[in-house]
Amino acid sequence: MQAPPHELAHITADILARLRANSPRVHCITNAVAQALTANVLLAVGALPSMTIAPEEVGDFVKRSHALLVNLGTFDAARREAAAIAIDTANERGLPWVLDPVLVDRSTLRAAHAKELAARAPKAVRLNHTEFVTLAGFAPEGGALTGYARNIGAVIGLTGATDFVADGGRLAAIGNGHPLMARVTALGCAASALVAACLAVERDAWRATAAALLAIGVAGELAAQRARGPGSFAVEILDALYALDRDMLIARAKVS
Amino acid sequence: MQAPPHELAHITADILARLRANSPRVHCITNAVAQALTANVLLAVGALPSMTIAPEEVGDFVKRSHALLVNLGTFDAARREAAAIAIDTANERGLPWVLDPVLVDRSTLRAAHAKELAARAPKAVRLNHTEFVTLAGFAPEGGALTGYARNIGAVIGLTGATDFVADGGRLAAIGNGHPLMARVTALGCAASALVAACLAVERDAWRATAAALLAIGVAGELAAQRARGPGSFAVEILDALYALDRDMLIARAKVS
Amino acid sequence: MQAPPHELAHITADILARLRANSPRVHCITNAVAQALTANVLLAVGALPSMTIAPEEVGDFVKRSHALLVNLGTFDAARREAAAIAIDTANERGLPWVLDPVLVDRSTLRAAHAKELAARAPKAVRLNHTEFVTLAGFAPEGGALTGYARNIGAVIGLTGATDFVADGGRLAAIGNGHPLMARVTALGCAASALVAACLAVERDAWRATAAALLAIGVAGELAAQRARGPGSFAVEILDALYALDRDMLIARAKVS
Repeated sequence: MQAPPHELAHITADILARLRANSPRVHCITNAVAQALTANVLLAVGALPSMTIAPEEVGDFVKRSHALLVNLGTFDAARREAAAIAIDTANERGLPWVLDPVLVDRSTLRAAHAKELAARAPKAVRLNHTEFVTLAGFAPEGGALTGYARNIGAVIGLTGATDFVADGGRLAAIGNGHPLMARVTALGCAASALVAACLAVERDAWRATAAALLAIGVAGELAAQRARGPGSFAVEILDALYALDRDMLIARAKVS
Repeated sequence: MQAPPHELAHITADILARLRANSPRVHCITNAVAQALTANVLLAVGALPSMTIAPEEVGDFVKRSHALLVNLGTFDAARREAAAIAIDTANERGLPWVLDPVLVDRSTLRAAHAKELAARAPKAVRLNHTEFVTLAGFAPEGGALTGYARNIGAVIGLTGATDFVADGGRLAAIGNGHPLMARVTALGCAASALVAACLAVERDAWRATAAALLAIGVAGELAAQRARGPGSFAVEILDALYALDRDMLIARAKVS
Repeated sequence: MQAPPHELAHITADILARLRANSPRVHCITNAVAQALTANVLLAVGALPSMTIAPEEVGDFVKRSHALLVNLGTFDAARREAAAIAIDTANERGLPWVLDPVLVDRSTLRAAHAKELAARAPKAVRLNHTEFVTLAGFAPEGGALTGYARNIGAVIGLTGATDFVADGGRLAAIGNGHPLMARVTALGCAASALVAACLAVERDAWRATAAALLAIGVAGELAAQRARGPGSFAVEILDALYALDRDMLIARAKVS
């Protein structure tokens, strides 16, 4: 166990407090399906989203932001061009950015593109098991996850029934979450945006990634207690993120 | 009466059970307004949506899907190109696809395009009265609906206060639904996606179309019982679709 | 005090009644983040939204509409071209249109574009303090707001903790609203669409703009009474707009 539950719960509570106090700006290049939920998740925790994908202005927006998300869903030519400019701008300025290689298993073009972007120094990559296999070329088992994280020099946030957060040396397993999270579109995309928000206020990318995934996992459990289905669950998880506090995190964190 | 209420209720319950068991992948080329609700309706019944419209990758996505929706809302050049590739791919592979000619009455370009697509062998076309008149050139009265369905070789799902589902020989009238359904954007678009999902697990396109419209109509009635306005109605209809079961369908189906 | 609370409450109630009776069509060129909420706000008050941004068909859509919204969020080349055509069409036909210069402070290109559009005779401009400063070049203090409104010949709806509505001669301050309104993405964009809807049924642009901002401010207060966070608030504000009536407006309007 590299991160005792209470330690990560405290780290997460501290990061959430900084988000609420500092209101960092997070620019998101993401798919149209995910845009509104992503913006609402960021607003619920106190961050300020922007979403333009116009190549002519995305550089200006990233310059005025504190973190960047690049999500590959509905990855058309305009978004590819915008992503290239945004990543250049972020890297020039030392802004942290997160890669979400959504559904790279469905398209060879998208997979090739994701591999190029993974080599451009994201601070974190958030993906699921299938997407990891497509991107890395092997399953995330045993030391493979930590090895891949070391290899690309980024924290990997691998989400599923249990979430794993790895950098070259540290590995956390987070057992929070709820099956209804898979019944709301773009909640994984929104989780990636939450990683970006946490990176805006926490320089340790492993802590930032783990905090984002723990926060949304605990919020999902709290939401499920009140929800009657995926419609009310999507409403409740925003309310839960907004209200999430240290006591809830300590009481519920399942970290090993 | 060609489909007794209980018969269509049982057919619908069977199709919903197959959706939940098989989780078919449904690729949707749809407008940005409709994307999130459409994805959430599909997820609520157990189907797995994808939404890319990038011409470079849409063929790959359709190849890995079990059904396709082509919706003409916000029909820009990229979506037209994506739709052409997607329909080619679906037809080559024998995948069922659904046409939703949204608002064809508002633009002559869109109407012309819808007519071309209607000739490319969709399994079903879901539209309202005004859209039907624009597409067919006459009102859907008497035998006209059945005649048009026979003529284009597709099932017609005509939605309104009463929904009609016609193929060349069969006609069902479904009296379920609620006026609040017209106060939530893109619920008609989402209904078309539900037709596509049902086609993924039911080869009889008339049964699949009728099942989708009955399911969403009954879910709408259940949602209206709990809702206080269109905001809560949009939440409740997702919860209702998620929970919809044979008993609810049998108790409420108004089919003739 | 140029508009006593009860007077503006009555004006607003009258305009809402006309929206519900006439169901005007409002075409919205807006960003993908805002599209669904904007459409749902319009539907909640009885207006009928359309949202296409395809240059080939936007002119046809505007011709069949009663008002137009041009929102600059995610302002890509397609939306710029669509906006130019839509504004030409609206101005040729004497249709009222509203400009929402979202986030013009973040991009010099966007700011330059907003200035060009502000010179093309919108009936109203809805923006916040930072956007006003970028667009006008000075702070909206003292007589500056009224002066700017006179100068560009449009009503200015300046939203914030207090909303101000100015034309060349009249100025209203509206103290309604709730802090949770800033925690739901695109609620400002949706307010601009509501201004457009009110302009469709009220020729006095100052009355239309003030009515839209009073209606959404009062709805926000009613929503906050029932909400537990930003997720439920977004649901409740749609229900509140749907149910908003003269008595609620009279009881709550804070206008000076």
